[in-house]
Amino acid sequence: MRAVAILGIGQTPVDEHWDKSIRVLAGEAVFAALRDAGRERADGLFVGNMLSGLLNRQENLGALIADWVGLRGTEALKIEAACGSGAAAFRAGLIAVGSGEMESALVVGIEKMTETVGPQTTAALATAADADWEAAQGLSFVAINALIMRRYLHEYGWRHTDFAPFSINAHTNATHNPNARLQESISLKDYEKARMVADPINLLDASPIGDGAAAMFLVPAETLHRNGHPLITVAGSASATDSIAVHDRHDPLWLSAAADSAQKAYAQAGLTPADIDLFELHDAFSIMAALSLEACGFAERGQGPRLGLDQQIHPTGRVPIATRGGLKARGHPVGATGVYQLVEVVEQLRGDAGATQVPDAQIGMAQNIGGSGATILTHILRAQ
Amino acid sequence: MRAVAILGIGQTPVDEHWDKSIRVLAGEAVFAALRDAGRERADGLFVGNMLSGLLNRQENLGALIADWVGLRGTEALKIEAACGSGAAAFRAGLIAVGSGEMESALVVGIEKMTETVGPQTTAALATAADADWEAAQGLSFVAINALIMRRYLHEYGWRHTDFAPFSINAHTNATHNPNARLQESISLKDYEKARMVADPINLLDASPIGDGAAAMFLVPAETLHRNGHPLITVAGSASATDSIAVHDRHDPLWLSAAADSAQKAYAQAGLTPADIDLFELHDAFSIMAALSLEACGFAERGQGPRLGLDQQIHPTGRVPIATRGGLKARGHPVGATGVYQLVEVVEQLRGDAGATQVPDAQIGMAQNIGGSGATILTHILRAQ
Repeated sequence: MRAVAILGIGQTPVDEHWDKSIRVLAGEAVFAALRDAGRERADGLFVGNMLSGLLNRQENLGALIADWVGLRGTEALKIEAACGSGAAAFRAGLIAVGSGEMESALVVGIEKMTETVGPQTTAALATAADADWEAAQGLSFVAINALIMRRYLHEYGWRHTDFAPFSINAHTNATHNPNARLQESISLKDYEKARMVADPINLLDASPIGDGAAAMFLVPAETLHRNGHPLITVAGSASATDSIAVHDRHDPLWLSAAADSAQKAYAQAGLTPADIDLFELHDAFSIMAALSLEACGFAERGQGPRLGLDQQIHPTGRVPIATRGGLKARGHPVGATGVYQLVEVVEQLRGDAGATQVPDAQIGMAQNIGGSGATILTHILRAQ
Repeated sequence: MRAVAILGIGQTPVDEHWDKSIRVLAGEAVFAALRDAGRERADGLFVGNMLSGLLNRQENLGALIADWVGLRGTEALKIEAACGSGAAAFRAGLIAVGSGEMESALVVGIEKMTETVGPQTTAALATAADADWEAAQGLSFVAINALIMRRYLHEYGWRHTDFAPFSINAHTNATHNPNARLQESISLKDYEKARMVADPINLLDASPIGDGAAAMFLVPAETLHRNGHPLITVAGSASATDSIAVHDRHDPLWLSAAADSAQKAYAQAGLTPADIDLFELHDAFSIMAALSLEACGFAERGQGPRLGLDQQIHPTGRVPIATRGGLKARGHPVGATGVYQLVEVVEQLRGDAGATQVPDAQIGMAQNIGGSGATILTHILRAQ
């Protein structure tokens, strides 16, 4: 494959967008990415979305959004990989441009989740789990993660409060991100006193859902006419899977699909974890932040929380994560999240991350998880 | 992109598979394709599916099916483009192998639709239409097609009975296909007396839904070790879109996305319609058969029914269509249909189509439609 560059990015605030339909919301991000890229058309549109059928009674999003953004006729489709849909759509667009099949591609992650009532949304999210062996037993998504976190606390001897730095860091960073859902900092006391959701996961361990869309414009690097931004290319891209049902795994505390996809991406880029300047990880729950850091080689097994306790995860730390708020505070519009992460990495590599800018950021990684570790995509971007 | 060949195919009967879960049904087709290809593993799994979230409460099908078929860890994702999901998944797999990103790919189209009650299934299918401007007005999918057919009859002066040959041909061919849902022939009298569904579409204009899965194994043509079958390569592949809402089109009787994608596929293959030995078209409703034949250059505008009336569409005719029963009689498990069509083209190019074999079939085309013409994919396969 030829090298692919990211020419434009766009995003909407993650919020409750009750006044905007799914196509309008997606359109806002797409138009922003087109403006940023200085383009008007693309050869293909790749939509990352998980729940439009269940929550918005709308499928065929590819054609729907292509038409709305003025690209009627253009090839378009929707990619679904649960909460990993956004990065999966990005990877499909990347391969299409890298293969030479297209000279440009738009990728948009879109999810609209706040118009339905809570139980309906919770049931919809449970479709990311194993319908026959998990959801049918009444396990919600947060309950599955609670089981994993409980086991982790037991296995490695951490206390619940040791996970506080993940949430505090994410919220602090989000106060500087105008697109974040929760632009408010939290204290250790807030974290410890937060309402329990599914023991041991409390409200401040869990990311908020939301409505949002994020978009990127991809072109072959070789043909890039720079538009005033640094040239940002995709140095590594990989996807891997694991069993959906957590009980079916060899080790429920090891994200093998994170490790596999990260190793592939490192190898493609010729890098090691020490070379990564920032890491936008999938902190849907604080336990997932720890497991991702371990699987990707930033911490020893069972030692993920140590990075937070040692103050290494903030923007000037050794392993900056959730630099724009992460899922925890930027918010988690599920099928859009993977594209938000990549957009945020681009913001960092362009030096546009403001108060949470990682100094001299040259190489950024994003990891997007579908299900409780079932589908995991890792991407490494590089500024040149 | 490098050339890609189809090394293996597999399919289940289209039926009511109440005893098989979605992963089991998909697995049957995948295992058959692996056996046919003489392989055990693939580098990627591309799942075409539309309704698993709404009807089966299961998303994340990529990881689910990969694990079930013994490919835990392998990259996998789901592609959705309404009833065009199957061919869209095929095209994604094609690009992944063609790009060099993978050395092999499995494509599986899967849909399981018969365990839910009729109104729920009808409402789910309506998510392929425009939720805000069509479905919200109470328009079902068959109603939209009925409006198109009514307009066609008015515009070009055909009688309803002139569409009978499409259904009769499909049913006749299906009597020789053990995987077809309706293995029974029908007469002109049956067609004319069939119960009305949405005037002018009667029961024998409409394809039956069903449960089914079809799969293919793709490899680079250059590395192919033949397995006793003719070498079958992808000579053309293209996808195009149109507005989802039919009232928004310049001409509701012209499938512009069919014309656009067919023209691109012809150009890639260096062929014209006269070179196509058989055409598996998307006869979800008989009116769609006529419109596809016109958009793809097999008939003049408004003259699609003439091909049937002149007895040109049966397997030894000038333009053989629905040679294994088509959507009308093989059945239409929506997200699987596009892969069934391609599997059937391969059967023809291998000379394995039995009583409905098209003589000396060397070049076959398949066209898969998502929505009432909103997303259309055209593929041309060639035996070498």
